[in-house]
Amino acid sequence: MRDVAIIGAGQTEVGEHWGVSLRHLALGAVQAAMADAGVMNADALYVGNMLSGELEGQEHLGALVADFAGLRGIEAFKIEAACGSGAAALRMGYIAVAGGLADIVIVVGVEKMTDTVGPDTTAALAMAADADYEAAQGASFVTINALLMRRYMHEYGYSHQAFAPFAVNAHRNAVHNPHAMLPFPVSAEKFASARMISDPINLLDSSPICDGAAGVVLAPADEARDRSTAPVRIVGSAVGTDTVAVHDRRDPLILEGANLSARRAYAQAGVGPKDIDLFELHDAFSIMATLSLEAAGFASSGKGLALALDGEIGIDGKIPITTMGGLKARGHPVGATGVYQVVEVVQQLRGLAAENQVPNARLGMAQNIGGSGATVITHILERMDD
Amino acid sequence: MRDVAIIGAGQTEVGEHWGVSLRHLALGAVQAAMADAGVMNADALYVGNMLSGELEGQEHLGALVADFAGLRGIEAFKIEAACGSGAAALRMGYIAVAGGLADIVIVVGVEKMTDTVGPDTTAALAMAADADYEAAQGASFVTINALLMRRYMHEYGYSHQAFAPFAVNAHRNAVHNPHAMLPFPVSAEKFASARMISDPINLLDSSPICDGAAGVVLAPADEARDRSTAPVRIVGSAVGTDTVAVHDRRDPLILEGANLSARRAYAQAGVGPKDIDLFELHDAFSIMATLSLEAAGFASSGKGLALALDGEIGIDGKIPITTMGGLKARGHPVGATGVYQVVEVVQQLRGLAAENQVPNARLGMAQNIGGSGATVITHILERMDD
Repeated sequence: MRDVAIIGAGQTEVGEHWGVSLRHLALGAVQAAMADAGVMNADALYVGNMLSGELEGQEHLGALVADFAGLRGIEAFKIEAACGSGAAALRMGYIAVAGGLADIVIVVGVEKMTDTVGPDTTAALAMAADADYEAAQGASFVTINALLMRRYMHEYGYSHQAFAPFAVNAHRNAVHNPHAMLPFPVSAEKFASARMISDPINLLDSSPICDGAAGVVLAPADEARDRSTAPVRIVGSAVGTDTVAVHDRRDPLILEGANLSARRAYAQAGVGPKDIDLFELHDAFSIMATLSLEAAGFASSGKGLALALDGEIGIDGKIPITTMGGLKARGHPVGATGVYQVVEVVQQLRGLAAENQVPNARLGMAQNIGGSGATVITHILERMDD
Repeated sequence: MRDVAIIGAGQTEVGEHWGVSLRHLALGAVQAAMADAGVMNADALYVGNMLSGELEGQEHLGALVADFAGLRGIEAFKIEAACGSGAAALRMGYIAVAGGLADIVIVVGVEKMTDTVGPDTTAALAMAADADYEAAQGASFVTINALLMRRYMHEYGYSHQAFAPFAVNAHRNAVHNPHAMLPFPVSAEKFASARMISDPINLLDSSPICDGAAGVVLAPADEARDRSTAPVRIVGSAVGTDTVAVHDRRDPLILEGANLSARRAYAQAGVGPKDIDLFELHDAFSIMATLSLEAAGFASSGKGLALALDGEIGIDGKIPITTMGGLKARGHPVGATGVYQVVEVVQQLRGLAAENQVPNARLGMAQNIGGSGATVITHILERMDD
């Protein structure tokens, strides 16, 4: 096994791209990542995507994107793990390069959720849940998260308003991210009066439905310095899974898959939560941000919200999260999100995050979640220039 | 990189399993493969599937199947490459074990195409083609293959009846396969009078819509002998891609992706077509069988059909194909097919194919195709007991 580095990263603006096809969206990210890496070819391309079949009537994205990107002939597949598809594709690329089966691998996450040919996007997203035992009972993805949020409030005695810091922090950071979908600040007062979506989840607890694509180029770390001016080493790459249906879990408020995934990544990297300088977590809903902080070891059970209330999740806090806006304000094009998270960590470790720069960021973690915690992929990245 | 072996293989009967859910179907194959391998756990599970979202309203099969199989917590994803999804999942498992990132990997291909909650299955299958430039023009998967068949007949001066040997051979071999969907013989006369589907493709040129699941367990080859009584070594594993839209190809009758894929696998294995004792090819339609024989080097362009007409594709022929019935008569549950092919090659190399046994089979090849040749995955397997 050899060390793997990210030698190029690129992203498209997240938004409602009604005039851009799925393949064009992917192409934008692939080209940006390849240009950044200075590579003209690759051994393989792995595409992270969840909904292209249901919403665009197009499966078979591996060959489609490879050909459209001028890479006809290379190995190419689509990897799917619901909203964790992006990081799942990165995990596959990591495995291929780490194991020596490929030298240069392109990973692209792409999703087009607006202006679709399929059914309601909320119905399509419910395919991340258990079709027979959750969705068939009328549960959507947001209602499942609403149950979790209500339970957390009940167990630990918090009001809904206590979750405001997540939205405030994410939107504050999105202001300076040119790729963010919602680059405007929101106040705690705005949060208090936001439109209800599924009680207790309101609009500002929720990430938006949107389109986007992000990509990275992987190479063996020992060649990375020659290839890139600012490579970033992947020091941890791990997956943990749990039941898809939330009602099958021992405790619905403990994300065991996320915990497994984080612990495996920490063990591989030889670090712990205290060593992580920033954490791009999966804030699809503010309850998921809370539970992720706990599952990844930044707080014990029931204490994740306190971190946010104490101001510790900001750029200058103990554990900065959603530093470029997160799923909440950068946007959550589901199968692309895991790659966006990693692109943003790379930006931070390269010292290119401008107004949002985490000072002296050296170790960054990205955690991408499929479903309500059923598939969790964690990557820990390290700056290579010191 | 280390050698990889298949230490267990299992399959469910192909058919219309209206009373069996998608997860139960997958479970049957996983359990059969694990029992055959004698393993109780695994490091990862990769699921090959194309249509579960569209036809069953269920994505996120990795975590779902892992949990249902008693493997909660392990790494698990779904891999998609249209009808090539099964072998794509195997390719991912191979990469993980060959590279040393996993020791025991379970690969399962599963598809449920009958009794679905989604739209017409033919429409869903068109997602393997180019949604914008083929399907949107009204082309279905069968009409695209019909155009290829008509072109082949025109270019090389064959009648439709010349394709009869593919169906006759496949059905003859299916008779003794207890897992086959259509285990009855058909005659060349039956072929001549079969119902037209999409001129010139008739019912006996076509593989059936069906449900099924097949699985294998992978392990490092140097541990395989201790773990399994009859392990089989993977000596070649390779992917080639081409344009998804057939009209974008240099020559629609040359499957360049299949050719690339086969050549890469031969090079890795250090063998050529003459060394292959049997070839489980992707006979979704008889024209695909013809073009595959040519692309994989068993005949030059325009000569693939002659192999069939000369009786060389039978068990005792120069290059036995579809030895257990193939896609045509065993059945083609699309995302599972690539794993069924490999399970059948394993059966042959273990000498367990009974009436269908290829004498002294030592090297077998399986080739799984996504779309009309856009993603092609080739595996070459070798008997380990000599």
